Amino acid sequence: MGKKVLIIGGVAAGPKAACRIKRLLADAEVTMVDQDNLISYGGCGIPYYVSGDVSDEKELRSTSYHMLRDKKYFEKAKGVTTLTSTRALSINRGEKTVTVENLKNGEKQDLPYDVLLLATGSRPFTLPIPGNDADGVFTVSDIHKAVEIKERIARGKVEKAVVIGGGAIGIEMAEAFADLWGVETAIVEFMDQLLPRIVSRTLSTILEKHLRDNNVDVFLGEAAEEIVTEDGKVVGVRTAKRNLEADIVIMAVGVRPRSELAREAGLHVSDGGAIVVNERLQTSDPDIYGAGDCIEIPHLVSGRKFFAPFGSMANKQGRVAADNMAGQVSIFKGGVGSFILKAFEMSIGSTGLSLETALAEGFDAEVSLTSPADRAHFYPTQSIMCLEMIFDRKTRRVLGFQGVGSTSDGLLARLDAAAVALCGNAVIDDFSNMEMAYSPPFSSAIDPINAAAYVADNLCEGRMRQITMDSFYAFMADRSLEPDWLVLDVRHVKQATPLVEKFGESLWISLPYDEIRERYNELPTDKTLIIFCNAGTRSFEIQVFLDAMGLTNNLVLPGGYNVIKRMGADWLPES
Amino acid sequence: MGKKVLIIGGVAAGPKAACRIKRLLADAEVTMVDQDNLISYGGCGIPYYVSGDVSDEKELRSTSYHMLRDKKYFEKAKGVTTLTSTRALSINRGEKTVTVENLKNGEKQDLPYDVLLLATGSRPFTLPIPGNDADGVFTVSDIHKAVEIKERIARGKVEKAVVIGGGAIGIEMAEAFADLWGVETAIVEFMDQLLPRIVSRTLSTILEKHLRDNNVDVFLGEAAEEIVTEDGKVVGVRTAKRNLEADIVIMAVGVRPRSELAREAGLHVSDGGAIVVNERLQTSDPDIYGAGDCIEIPHLVSGRKFFAPFGSMANKQGRVAADNMAGQVSIFKGGVGSFILKAFEMSIGSTGLSLETALAEGFDAEVSLTSPADRAHFYPTQSIMCLEMIFDRKTRRVLGFQGVGSTSDGLLARLDAAAVALCGNAVIDDFSNMEMAYSPPFSSAIDPINAAAYVADNLCEGRMRQITMDSFYAFMADRSLEPDWLVLDVRHVKQATPLVEKFGESLWISLPYDEIRERYNELPTDKTLIIFCNAGTRSFEIQVFLDAMGLTNNLVLPGGYNVIKRMGADWLPES
Repeated sequence: MGKKVLIIGGVAAGPKAACRIKRLLADAEVTMVDQDNLISYGGCGIPYYVSGDVSDEKELRSTSYHMLRDKKYFEKAKGVTTLTSTRALSINRGEKTVTVENLKNGEKQDLPYDVLLLATGSRPFTLPIPGNDADGVFTVSDIHKAVEIKERIARGKVEKAVVIGGGAIGIEMAEAFADLWGVETAIVEFMDQLLPRIVSRTLSTILEKHLRDNNVDVFLGEAAEEIVTEDGKVVGVRTAKRNLEADIVIMAVGVRPRSELAREAGLHVSDGGAIVVNERLQTSDPDIYGAGDCIEIPHLVSGRKFFAPFGSMANKQGRVAADNMAGQVSIFKGGVGSFILKAFEMSIGSTGLSLETALAEGFDAEVSLTSPADRAHFYPTQSIMCLEMIFDRKTRRVLGFQGVGSTSDGLLARLDAAAVALCGNAVIDDFSNMEMAYSPPFSSAIDPINAAAYVADNLCEGRMRQITMDSFYAFMADRSLEPDWLVLDVRHVKQATPLVEKFGESLWISLPYDEIRERYNELPTDKTLIIFCNAGTRSFEIQVFLDAMGLTNNLVLPGGYNVIKRMGADWLPES
Repeated sequence: MGKKVLIIGGVAAGPKAACRIKRLLADAEVTMVDQDNLISYGGCGIPYYVSGDVSDEKELRSTSYHMLRDKKYFEKAKGVTTLTSTRALSINRGEKTVTVENLKNGEKQDLPYDVLLLATGSRPFTLPIPGNDADGVFTVSDIHKAVEIKERIARGKVEKAVVIGGGAIGIEMAEAFADLWGVETAIVEFMDQLLPRIVSRTLSTILEKHLRDNNVDVFLGEAAEEIVTEDGKVVGVRTAKRNLEADIVIMAVGVRPRSELAREAGLHVSDGGAIVVNERLQTSDPDIYGAGDCIEIPHLVSGRKFFAPFGSMANKQGRVAADNMAGQVSIFKGGVGSFILKAFEMSIGSTGLSLETALAEGFDAEVSLTSPADRAHFYPTQSIMCLEMIFDRKTRRVLGFQGVGSTSDGLLARLDAAAVALCGNAVIDDFSNMEMAYSPPFSSAIDPINAAAYVADNLCEGRMRQITMDSFYAFMADRSLEPDWLVLDVRHVKQATPLVEKFGESLWISLPYDEIRERYNELPTDKTLIIFCNAGTRSFEIQVFLDAMGLTNNLVLPGGYNVIKRMGADWLPES
């Protein structure tokens, strides 16, 4: 008789582990249990099923060769005994059994194991507000709910949608509603920006503007206080500031690890509710493993444990757990929290720490903000990316990398390369010389990631002094905040003139980049010059030059007009 | 007086270094010399200028903010004295001067230096064959030639083109001719594949088929023996096998470092003709630096010095050299030879070593060939990539990574991530758990790079036994080579049937993947089963299962039908 392997959870880590174990130990008796009747699905695909990009939910449950990953598939193709609609009730560690209940007929049985994998995943958090259980309130958690949401839209029952939560899933769902179905859609986010903590306000503002430009309303800094209902059905969402009408409400306010089974069995569970595992993915009971959304993993930049509920991580962990359960040592070192999101014609993503989280972790963190072209600037399909590289001033270690770009995979390329480097404790200089494959249709001779590192290097060495985009926006809203600031626009005269005319030379002056060496003595010396160009690169050169001329009272606005145009601002002249 | 900095070469590394030095040492007296009157251009953009994607050659010489990078620009915007149409004749190391000649008036002068940078670049190699200097024969080396080529096409003077050389530039030029101008175009390559040594025959055959499908003829294993001329003008190219008519011939047979100046000054130059530098990019004279196409750099996988003539490397080296010349220690560790190329609707690229070069370097090298979707297989824009991961069986170190994909940046993302890992001496397991940002529009839960590593792991551990695509093609051409091979097609019956019907069950049998556990005993035991599916993943599972049943006489065809379909084969049934 082969090794008895029991797996609780049949969505991502569980099936991956089950199949891998059968490939390593052909005679293992592998049993996979899930409380749902639908298993092994791509949950991250739900927004694309709702939008209609994916026409049939079965595609989310099928292999690339179009076989449905159902109970029969796991049994016939994989040799894995599969109990669906079966809930694990308790782990009996002494006897090494798990008591499960068939949800269809209520029958219970004890399943024996030599090794057990907990791949119990996560559950969506539900806000404890009135109306949260009304008809028409959904979380984005499983295929059944996805089908019901899509059916309501397809039947023409949804004209107005409110998404509570401005994280990745909320934004993907908002796009699904607004883009292909034309549903009037609003996002309500409690924090004062989208993707809070994950990206800066600068990048989130770019995303926010893009959502608004695509007919998604965004209300920030507003808690949903009540789901308004009539006859038990959703009719709206109330915040402190407004009432929003809605036929459907999506609650996308994060997920929590499902760890009750582990906790009740006396396994070590973190304060945050995640199952604690070692790098072989063993829980505090060495015969019981954990993988996927129910565990926490080491963050390879901060060193702290974190919760990384991504299908991609779950699959990797499933394989590592399977190796170890099959008796072959395999290590899962941790992760850096990479993420990427499509929102209409934009991609936004992150790896490692944002400036906010890096500062909170105690790093001497600073950010390089750049706005380069994503491929050769002369190549017709080029578009501007806005990138932030977070680094530690003392150690020069790169701590994180975030950006927005087009929906090409150009942002992906930089995030993935950055993630590998972050895992290897890379410093700024490693990014400066990072070898990125180059030809004009794909990149530029100085790749955006190299350029971001150049700026970080200049900041670190004190060669570049900058203000933040936040402080510039605050200043433009209230100039009394910085009464001695004067914007020096070094772009072409044609670009600068509309701003000079709008604001007058007490706020905005023009002196083109290539005339500065001859005309710098025309500049006022009693003002702090805020040097302004399209991307920040010319501004830095001007700073270096002015410094050398003894005119050191100047600061660079990093990212420049490229970033501001994408953020939007009520003070920008019509173009 | 500031430091005297002299730079020979004004295309990529030279201008980068000149500007960087001025930013580090504002009072440095920087002089840049180039024998051409056009400088600081994106030479890699020439094929896109010829094709018409880039309408004006000035775009290749302009900044992203549309300033022309000419002599005046470098002087006014950058503060760099710029001598164009000026050739450096000799370095006088004792006096620390360089003798230069103004090519317009023949005047000579000695320019003094404290530090000197040789950024003399490379020159295209010209085949020593009759007619190589005829009117209509071009190398792709500078803007002047690019302009002349495009003018000839635009004037309707070019109906037939022959490109000699099946490397990156040759292929890019062939696309430029054939795609937008409709010129009848042929590539002649001396070696028996395109991109020899850089990618495998499998990948090069996919590229070759794609070129043919886009009306580019490809003649392999044929040396151009003569440029046929009439009245001094090109009329064709003769190989041992054929005469090809041509109004224009592009000779793209590689480049050689320009190192005469260095050699004549007694600096250390390699056998291959490249200037030898240390990791601070100093030549054998510590006051003389080298950067760009004229130097050789350490290969971070093989450890050997290599020649990496890429604009992207030149820029990085220019910055490192500038730092050191300005007195700030900076290191250029080397590279891994990353490259990417667009050919019509395909991208092809490489980083690190190919199987062929890895074997030649003495590694115990093996390859994992996979054909995954480049994003979630249910996402509408997904397409298949064909990937090869090269690894060392003994050390499990990953040595290289090559692939073909669509023209999205999806291949770029995997190449760039792989390149960072290669520079960090990554082993297979690092690639297995490499964190790639995931959401369905950009990637799959098991990223292609992770999947490639999984296969490499299975090969390394002896869990997977494979044949090569080359040996399968040889077998299909001549079955007597492997008289006991029998193809076991585990795809859907509908997919397998055309092949079973075409070849008969003595060559090709069908047994679907999900029926194998019930029906394996129907399989013949006197044959070596070549297990065949779309991508190789099901084949491997079948292998593991059959092995466990004691039927170990079987081998996997990696990559499967996905690869074969893209390679093309005369034995494939019409689909």
